[in-house]
Amino acid sequence: MEERVKEALAEIQRGTAEIIDIERIEILIKNYYEKGENFYVKAGFDPTAPDLHLGHTVLIQKMATFQKFGGIVQFLIGDFTATIGDPTGKSETRKVLTEEQVIANAQSYKEQVFKILDPEKTEVKFNSKWLKELGTGGLISLASHLTVARMLERDDFSKRYASNTPIAVSEFTYPLLQGYDSVAMGTDIELGGTDQKFNLLMGRTLQKAYNTGKQQAVLMMPILEGLDGVQKMSKSLGNYIGVTDEPNDMFGKTLSISDELMWRYYELLSSKSLKEIEELKNGVENGTLHPKKVKEALAMEIVERFHGEGEGEKAKAEFEKVFANKDIPTDMPEYEMESGIWLCQALVDAQLVGSTSQARRDIKANAVSINQEKVNDEKLNLEIGEYILQKGKKSFAKIIIK
Amino acid sequence: MEERVKEALAEIQRGTAEIIDIERIEILIKNYYEKGENFYVKAGFDPTAPDLHLGHTVLIQKMATFQKFGGIVQFLIGDFTATIGDPTGKSETRKVLTEEQVIANAQSYKEQVFKILDPEKTEVKFNSKWLKELGTGGLISLASHLTVARMLERDDFSKRYASNTPIAVSEFTYPLLQGYDSVAMGTDIELGGTDQKFNLLMGRTLQKAYNTGKQQAVLMMPILEGLDGVQKMSKSLGNYIGVTDEPNDMFGKTLSISDELMWRYYELLSSKSLKEIEELKNGVENGTLHPKKVKEALAMEIVERFHGEGEGEKAKAEFEKVFANKDIPTDMPEYEMESGIWLCQALVDAQLVGSTSQARRDIKANAVSINQEKVNDEKLNLEIGEYILQKGKKSFAKIIIK
Repeated sequence: MEERVKEALAEIQRGTAEIIDIERIEILIKNYYEKGENFYVKAGFDPTAPDLHLGHTVLIQKMATFQKFGGIVQFLIGDFTATIGDPTGKSETRKVLTEEQVIANAQSYKEQVFKILDPEKTEVKFNSKWLKELGTGGLISLASHLTVARMLERDDFSKRYASNTPIAVSEFTYPLLQGYDSVAMGTDIELGGTDQKFNLLMGRTLQKAYNTGKQQAVLMMPILEGLDGVQKMSKSLGNYIGVTDEPNDMFGKTLSISDELMWRYYELLSSKSLKEIEELKNGVENGTLHPKKVKEALAMEIVERFHGEGEGEKAKAEFEKVFANKDIPTDMPEYEMESGIWLCQALVDAQLVGSTSQARRDIKANAVSINQEKVNDEKLNLEIGEYILQKGKKSFAKIIIK
Repeated sequence: MEERVKEALAEIQRGTAEIIDIERIEILIKNYYEKGENFYVKAGFDPTAPDLHLGHTVLIQKMATFQKFGGIVQFLIGDFTATIGDPTGKSETRKVLTEEQVIANAQSYKEQVFKILDPEKTEVKFNSKWLKELGTGGLISLASHLTVARMLERDDFSKRYASNTPIAVSEFTYPLLQGYDSVAMGTDIELGGTDQKFNLLMGRTLQKAYNTGKQQAVLMMPILEGLDGVQKMSKSLGNYIGVTDEPNDMFGKTLSISDELMWRYYELLSSKSLKEIEELKNGVENGTLHPKKVKEALAMEIVERFHGEGEGEKAKAEFEKVFANKDIPTDMPEYEMESGIWLCQALVDAQLVGSTSQARRDIKANAVSINQEKVNDEKLNLEIGEYILQKGKKSFAKIIIK
């Protein structure tokens, strides 16, 4: 195998959980190098939740990798099912989106993903375009290509069927629609999570059934662990770094992860090459590099990716000021208050404590400072002036009393 | 219960295999008698096969019964699925019909069923009208109303699933579409065979799910036995009386059935009231009526239904001439042949025997006549003239040699 093809394949395989038909991917990359032919790399995204965290960007990073080797990304927004109401009324959380909302969400997606993807090599697609056209007859034809038994082999379906948990017949159509998206778009490679294997393979099955002359390769990425290193990164578990998080939050959260998790994040999230990462690992192992420095480099890379050049360095300096030097931050929430306000009330209004009784306990525990001096008087009232209130080591607020 | 409602219900229940929600039917009939309100009675028919036999007319007779008590018949031609190709190419027998073919078949249906149904109280409907409009999203919504487990309870599905015989996911949509037809048409009562129970109940389920304010009653008719009295009447088994059969065939076939089957046919096919049938039965039992006379009356009723008044009497006379008096029929197939033709060849060409060797055997067996005289010479050649060839008791042909 040619050296550059070998290197490309190594980058593509990096961090993957499973690849189906790597031979096909090899051919596509060869064709790109030899004939300049591009190929299509698809991944589907939920139109209701354009609020991404790093867990989502694992896939997007991989798509960006393909863009280096001839891949044109099909960034598919699965708007079709979101436009169908749930007539059973069972799912209260299921939002029906208007066309305007879908367009607004797509815009928000673009703002987030184009920090990683090359817009010149990205096509944003909406599946309602071809799925609406399919019609009643088209959907029935589509559904004729798969058997009920095969559908019930899907892991979650088989478990639910075995445990008598209802599966609506409509749920059988979703994998078919996802597969049909690949037929309609002429996809060469589809990316997804390991939990999507069944649906990803559906694209292969249907491209063959519809005689498209293609059968997409499938590349599955693992689920990214959250900051705790145990559970998957998710909004609801609170163990996430959001793509729109503030630079200081991103930096601080990244520094909080374990050294072990740090290498996992390097593998799945960093744009550094495998070779560069190998060098960092060697440095830590032979003691020439402190793991904290390596972690800071990762944190800076993540901050710069989403906030621009120079922001990583700034976040690092800020972090060091607050946490390492125990100094006050340069940026903190400000509140205007009435002259004569009771300190305990001011602590509540500045959202540093939950109640005035909590404020009293904190003052007694010696945990409250004004302008970096501890306060003992829980009956204190504040007069006109500017004060920096601090609770504990990390919580600050600026109070302006006029 | 009012007497006329009671009588109507007795006629409606006559010969049925099962009725679901008879209370609903009682209300509909009361409303008709008291307020003149009509109601809708649906039955679905295959658009590919407008060539009906008496087995099909069992349902149509029942629809006609409802027309006497306020029912407006929804004669539904299920043209929608016939317009969908089978993309798997597995079913070679599945015909895709054009719109023109569907219209032509509907015309043929009308010609046949309006011998039984009152056209003034019949609406011929095509389900492609609302099923096309449903669209991809509408079909998915529809499919959300039923679970996979419930679908697999359908007898044929459960058997096929248990025996690993493939069920296409598309097959799950057909009961849903049939049920949706009742939603779209506002059906009050649906009629079908006992083998259709699952699909018929789907209409009830979906009318409720779609909040139509209706839940159709369901009336199931048994499968009509064929002339043999054992297997169901069917074209492929050859044990049928076709709606377009010639009067003489209809008459003769009906006379060939057993006395037991005759009463079954009276119940399911005759327009005679229950009371009239009871009287016939009493007559046969007390010896005042010969069963053959009762069978002739049934045969005449069937002939007159499909061929018009007076035709029953004519068919009876013809039948008696041929079979009872062993006379030759007034009407028989004619063939023109070349002078000098060998008798055995003429018997083959006139379709009285399958081969010349068979013809020879029949002549030897004394089973062949020319102009009502037995022939012994198997080497005979026929010269110019007209001859009536006869084989056995029932097979005749006229031969014209010029």
